[in-house]
Amino acid sequence: MSRIAYVNGQYVQHSEAAVHIEDRGYQFADGVYEVCEVWNNQIVDMPRHLDRLGRSLSELSIDWPMSRPAVEFVLRQVVRRNKVRNGLVYIQVTRGVSKRDHFFPPANVAPSIVVTARSSSPAAVNAQAEAGISVFSYPENRWPRVDIKTVALLPNVLAKQSAKERGGKEAWYVDADGNVTEGGSTNAWIVTKDGKLITRPAESGILRGITRTAILDLVEREGLSFEERPFSLEEAYDAKEAFVTAATNIAMPVVRIDDKVIGNGHPGSVATRLRELFHTATDLKVV
Amino acid sequence: MSRIAYVNGQYVQHSEAAVHIEDRGYQFADGVYEVCEVWNNQIVDMPRHLDRLGRSLSELSIDWPMSRPAVEFVLRQVVRRNKVRNGLVYIQVTRGVSKRDHFFPPANVAPSIVVTARSSSPAAVNAQAEAGISVFSYPENRWPRVDIKTVALLPNVLAKQSAKERGGKEAWYVDADGNVTEGGSTNAWIVTKDGKLITRPAESGILRGITRTAILDLVEREGLSFEERPFSLEEAYDAKEAFVTAATNIAMPVVRIDDKVIGNGHPGSVATRLRELFHTATDLKVV
Repeated sequence: MSRIAYVNGQYVQHSEAAVHIEDRGYQFADGVYEVCEVWNNQIVDMPRHLDRLGRSLSELSIDWPMSRPAVEFVLRQVVRRNKVRNGLVYIQVTRGVSKRDHFFPPANVAPSIVVTARSSSPAAVNAQAEAGISVFSYPENRWPRVDIKTVALLPNVLAKQSAKERGGKEAWYVDADGNVTEGGSTNAWIVTKDGKLITRPAESGILRGITRTAILDLVEREGLSFEERPFSLEEAYDAKEAFVTAATNIAMPVVRIDDKVIGNGHPGSVATRLRELFHTATDLKVV
Repeated sequence: MSRIAYVNGQYVQHSEAAVHIEDRGYQFADGVYEVCEVWNNQIVDMPRHLDRLGRSLSELSIDWPMSRPAVEFVLRQVVRRNKVRNGLVYIQVTRGVSKRDHFFPPANVAPSIVVTARSSSPAAVNAQAEAGISVFSYPENRWPRVDIKTVALLPNVLAKQSAKERGGKEAWYVDADGNVTEGGSTNAWIVTKDGKLITRPAESGILRGITRTAILDLVEREGLSFEERPFSLEEAYDAKEAFVTAATNIAMPVVRIDDKVIGNGHPGSVATRLRELFHTATDLKVV
């Protein structure tokens, strides 16, 4: 549980942390966010997350709510004040508070910023990784700008909830060509029967995951067989292994997709190895 | 300006009206809304708006935040407490406050409700209707569930802002077939050169506008020539008149689409007549 949140310049009790009802994040989903892993008292890949935050803001013509160094300071502060050793830190920036109107507000309206942090149990996540998760396919029905990490997440909520109601932990979007784009909140990967790691290029249809990028560095460093290309749902059914990546779960093995058991039904060796090595390929900033 | 807002059971000063940072409306756009016109101390078509609110909630598996009669009472109260004679009343319902997680929260999490109301100047809106507005076409890029009136409005914000930056007041979405779907926050209509009123069926690609429905009743009552079918952007360029409908502007004449002048460049007679007669075809509930 987050106990202290940062909201527009103040550290406040989480229970009392609030934004105005006319914050454009609330009325228009007019904002963006990032989630960084906190591992061993360090924020993982903060520079890359803030690079991407900057890109998301820029794509929507939202200003930084404060300088980037100030944002870094606040992220660290919120992690420290919540005594998070392992967990995550969340930042959301919206276009600010203004009388409801679809059009952008006047230039003097300042963006809003919210930062929270909370602990998670590495043991619980590891136990899940040792069991592997089930995913369920879902027709891609999001707008094309999924490259921007916006809070307009309702489609993702519905896709993931649909998976959950069928016993899964994640939904895999499948586009009109039958290719997997990504998960509801993760990137999607498979390993083919001949041991080649496959993931979809980030140029279209997906968010360029920060964990995905770190894994790609690791893949290169370790000299793994790899190809960046779209893969179909059918190919995934037939894969040797499958996994998903995200800041909140690193590389999480997938052992079932829809009604198909993947590989031998147990977490694959590639995903497990990438998971073990992951933090050796990341930027770690002590909080 | 709204002075008093209703937020989760309390009437509060608008300036202090706030929701928790983990309200799912703020983090996931996991909510829906309605806007009703207030005309002459009456809420226009409240039953239809609340029917649609109920449908939106049902499609997302969100419960009513309180009984429907209680919602009606609050809508009236907020209009009265803000002394709105002409203007609008806004209601937003979200899935409530819960620790951030895409999956639906536990069943004991109550939906959130926010109601605001504000005055507008009939003279200003009428002046705009006498001049007519410009609209700009925009490639349809929203998810297919635009039939649900969700707060995931970022795509609409960007489309409308794009129109504004080119001198327009509205964006008209154009689908892959070249047909106009609807405006960023309005339904789209044309009148052909032989005097037939055309609007797209509400079965796909658009929100079933309440004002649209009231106008359809009026069209039938007045015996106007009418056809419900998709129309292309090219057909709109060539139309005798064009207009948009929404609770906030009734029937608003369109005199320019992109770089094309529509008809004689002045508000058309059909739109003007429908605008004049509009409230004779609506349900009016005294506040």
